[in-house]
Amino acid sequence: MVTSPVKTLSLEEFLQLPETKPASEYIEGEIIQKHKPQGHHSTIQVDLTEAINAVVKKQRIARAYTELRCIFGGRAIVPDITVFAWQRIPIDEQGNVANIFNLAPDWMIEILSPDQNQTKVTGKILHALNHGSQMGWLIDPETESVLVYPPQQQPQLLEEETAILPTPELVKDLQLKVGDIFAWLKHQ
Amino acid sequence: MVTSPVKTLSLEEFLQLPETKPASEYIEGEIIQKHKPQGHHSTIQVDLTEAINAVVKKQRIARAYTELRCIFGGRAIVPDITVFAWQRIPIDEQGNVANIFNLAPDWMIEILSPDQNQTKVTGKILHALNHGSQMGWLIDPETESVLVYPPQQQPQLLEEETAILPTPELVKDLQLKVGDIFAWLKHQ
Repeated sequence: MVTSPVKTLSLEEFLQLPETKPASEYIEGEIIQKHKPQGHHSTIQVDLTEAINAVVKKQRIARAYTELRCIFGGRAIVPDITVFAWQRIPIDEQGNVANIFNLAPDWMIEILSPDQNQTKVTGKILHALNHGSQMGWLIDPETESVLVYPPQQQPQLLEEETAILPTPELVKDLQLKVGDIFAWLKHQ
Repeated sequence: MVTSPVKTLSLEEFLQLPETKPASEYIEGEIIQKHKPQGHHSTIQVDLTEAINAVVKKQRIARAYTELRCIFGGRAIVPDITVFAWQRIPIDEQGNVANIFNLAPDWMIEILSPDQNQTKVTGKILHALNHGSQMGWLIDPETESVLVYPPQQQPQLLEEETAILPTPELVKDLQLKVGDIFAWLKHQ
């Protein structure tokens, strides 16, 4: 059997492809489609985005987005939640928010889905930290815990319900405990 | 329905329990039995232990162990591989290696099994770093990559086959590439 060599797309070629749903990411020549969102993932994604925007959007300090493609350091990633400082948000000629975000988020948050490979998700967070992100969170609904990644420091695993989650300086007014994140899952 | 409160064992009570197979760990009041070892896990565990001992055991610099229970910081964990500096290995009254290791390893290595919760494994590595370990490795056979955790620093994800794996100063003579670890899985 003769196998033909796998053709690797360049980042530029990848960016010309039609959008997929769920979104696809481009990491080191590999195209990876994101998982179909499920209940736990969606609930935390929506409620946490709202909680962040509640303390920074009206004040024009920063803004949280979901499923926004960020292109930097030779990769195109689509974190579950990204937060950008107000003055870093790219603007087009009409003064609207741009469609293309060619920069690393100030804060990126990933919510683990069952069967998602955590090493790859961790790699995305480390890539963002290496390109200027101020913080990464990895939320694990299965263990109800959060791994917090500050730049150039050892990560921290927060497991206690009452533990206060560290936030980037930009969003310092957000006071959330680990238990608050997983309380959102309770349908009351 | 009336539910009775869950009785939490103390570390001392846990240590009185009969040994299980696979071993059990005691983490924050929770008793967690390790996964049944499978082919990939066992192969890397044996070959990597041999590779480490080949450069440090004869010279009495350090020694690598598999499945050794280490008790420190209020937890009892059983890393897949632990490495201890020669002079830190506890000795009993007969001058033999002690049965109880009440200290953190200088280096701990975990090899992910399918369906193992990676957040918990990461938590074990961070606990060891917080109690004096010089390095942690998290080997992911699924992605053929290694997460390297130095103390008080940001972790590093090594994915390239040719990437040289950082080792603790103690085992600096060990020169391994990422590809070497996963080449062991090839049965030739």
